Amino acid sequence: MKTMKALGQTKFGGTEVLHEATLPVPEAQGSDLLVRVKAVGINPADSMVRQNVADFGKLQNSELVLTGWDCAGVVEDVGPQADGRFRKGDEVFFAGNIARRGCNSEYTVVDSRIVGRKPASLSFIEAAALPLTALTVWEGMVEGCGIPLGPQPGTPKRALIIGGAGGVGSIGIQILSRVCGLKVVATASRPESVEFCRKMGAHVVIDHSKDLKAQLTANGIDAVDYVLNTINPDINFDTLTALIAPMGKICSLHPITKPVDLASLYVRRISVVYELMFTRPMLNVQPEMQGAILDHVSALVDAGTLRTTLVTQKPWTVAGLAEAHQHSQSGKAIGKIVLGPVG
Amino acid sequence: MKTMKALGQTKFGGTEVLHEATLPVPEAQGSDLLVRVKAVGINPADSMVRQNVADFGKLQNSELVLTGWDCAGVVEDVGPQADGRFRKGDEVFFAGNIARRGCNSEYTVVDSRIVGRKPASLSFIEAAALPLTALTVWEGMVEGCGIPLGPQPGTPKRALIIGGAGGVGSIGIQILSRVCGLKVVATASRPESVEFCRKMGAHVVIDHSKDLKAQLTANGIDAVDYVLNTINPDINFDTLTALIAPMGKICSLHPITKPVDLASLYVRRISVVYELMFTRPMLNVQPEMQGAILDHVSALVDAGTLRTTLVTQKPWTVAGLAEAHQHSQSGKAIGKIVLGPVG
Repeated sequence: MKTMKALGQTKFGGTEVLHEATLPVPEAQGSDLLVRVKAVGINPADSMVRQNVADFGKLQNSELVLTGWDCAGVVEDVGPQADGRFRKGDEVFFAGNIARRGCNSEYTVVDSRIVGRKPASLSFIEAAALPLTALTVWEGMVEGCGIPLGPQPGTPKRALIIGGAGGVGSIGIQILSRVCGLKVVATASRPESVEFCRKMGAHVVIDHSKDLKAQLTANGIDAVDYVLNTINPDINFDTLTALIAPMGKICSLHPITKPVDLASLYVRRISVVYELMFTRPMLNVQPEMQGAILDHVSALVDAGTLRTTLVTQKPWTVAGLAEAHQHSQSGKAIGKIVLGPVG
Repeated sequence: MKTMKALGQTKFGGTEVLHEATLPVPEAQGSDLLVRVKAVGINPADSMVRQNVADFGKLQNSELVLTGWDCAGVVEDVGPQADGRFRKGDEVFFAGNIARRGCNSEYTVVDSRIVGRKPASLSFIEAAALPLTALTVWEGMVEGCGIPLGPQPGTPKRALIIGGAGGVGSIGIQILSRVCGLKVVATASRPESVEFCRKMGAHVVIDHSKDLKAQLTANGIDAVDYVLNTINPDINFDTLTALIAPMGKICSLHPITKPVDLASLYVRRISVVYELMFTRPMLNVQPEMQGAILDHVSALVDAGTLRTTLVTQKPWTVAGLAEAHQHSQSGKAIGKIVLGPVG
């Protein structure tokens, strides 16, 4: 039996639970691809699963758990019912399925329907920064909020991204400004995060630690049509609803658990849209849409419309993974952290 | 000064407050049309305004208030900035603006941008049944929920309409089944309302006084993709969320005022969409979309795709208006009530 190196955990806790492990190389069954992992992107979901505080169901504290739901690699084998788009040797990227093992291992298996072609113009490290966050923005804003792909006639609609310099924020700025043609306001509070938001394409950057309404007004913006809220909505939901124009939409990436005033949204016809990138693969609802979105994102990268959000690279070691988790959890990370090369 | 007859009220209360009045014929200024009213549709908003319990702001108890926000009539004069679509003599229909007087008078003025051409194949009485409810369904479901116009490839998505035999429900069944190509489940509890839902095009009719989930299951439907909820969501919101498929949407025509469990909607990515037909004219947000929707609805009627939802006609008198309000408030009304001929 062929084996492989993995970075995993058998109990939940701080980064000290992470360790090296040896696993059998999995087989591509059903609609799966077997992928040789080249680089692994880090997301907040990794630390949430490591600590077992994820919103999407508790894991068992005994099995070997691998985190890492963002991958770029090479197709090694194709399952008998796999999507006909892929052949051995194809370079791919994908965000995976949180109901299965993450991809912190030399090989991984993934449902071919949620896999996209890696942008040819990016390295594996650069490509692994994109899938999870790009899917989140595309599903939440283009699909969930119904924002059309631009350019649009007339005055551009306005989007506010809370947490502009983070992983979702940094590809969100790009997609909403360059693909959807919106006027994008991003929030950031440190000089380096403000600069990063501007580099990603934000038209206006405001400080989320100060009065948002006053800062929008100072920039000639009376209200925004869309909000992409990357932080806990229990903190800021009512603040956001005061900024929204009639028929506006708020996309939340996290559940709203505290009571909120929904009645006040009625006369302005404001909608609340949830986005969780793992919904489709986890519940097996139109998973093929994720493959299609990633292929589209890949084409936009190769056309020069979108760029990687990679900022920090760490070695694919236990120490590198631990540092990446800590950096991700610090709340100070700018853009994306990717581990690699794998192996 | 030319005067006209009107049916109005100068205090709030039961139908006994309604009385006949004489008013000057208004002038078509700005972007308005002056319309000779031929028929007036009755909606729940009329009784709410009569009693001053509308969600959209309290009125003053002294001025002459006219209700009636559904009208079919003939253009008598065109304001200097009016939409170029209209000429004197054109037959039109529209739902109006609740921030202005309703149209229970021989003449009324209306912003030309929210006016549509009356279906040529309908009488004024038949046409006045449609604007407010058709706009509500179109804005709430096609725009708000993002339901594409059909036919769609693959298995049809499923919509549940709570209150299928009412004014909104009866045009909702038609639009969602015949224009959007959805499988439509409507609720109704009396033999005559069940029959009316079927006549409007409902594929399945279930009883809202019994277990909805069990009845859906008995009809081979495991979940629905959209809900059009025409009743108070404080009564049934949590019941509805249990019926919704992942990525489903609930359209509410009334504000949600009680605390609801929004966290449980997260993993399934369920959105809450509000619809209030008066938002656009009241807040002057893209009012021209209402003219465009009504023109589209008119064409669909003349093509035989949609039909009037008129069921009850009353004379345009104080007594007729009072009876219409009482019938509308009874909760037993099927389809629409229209008053006319006016004058």
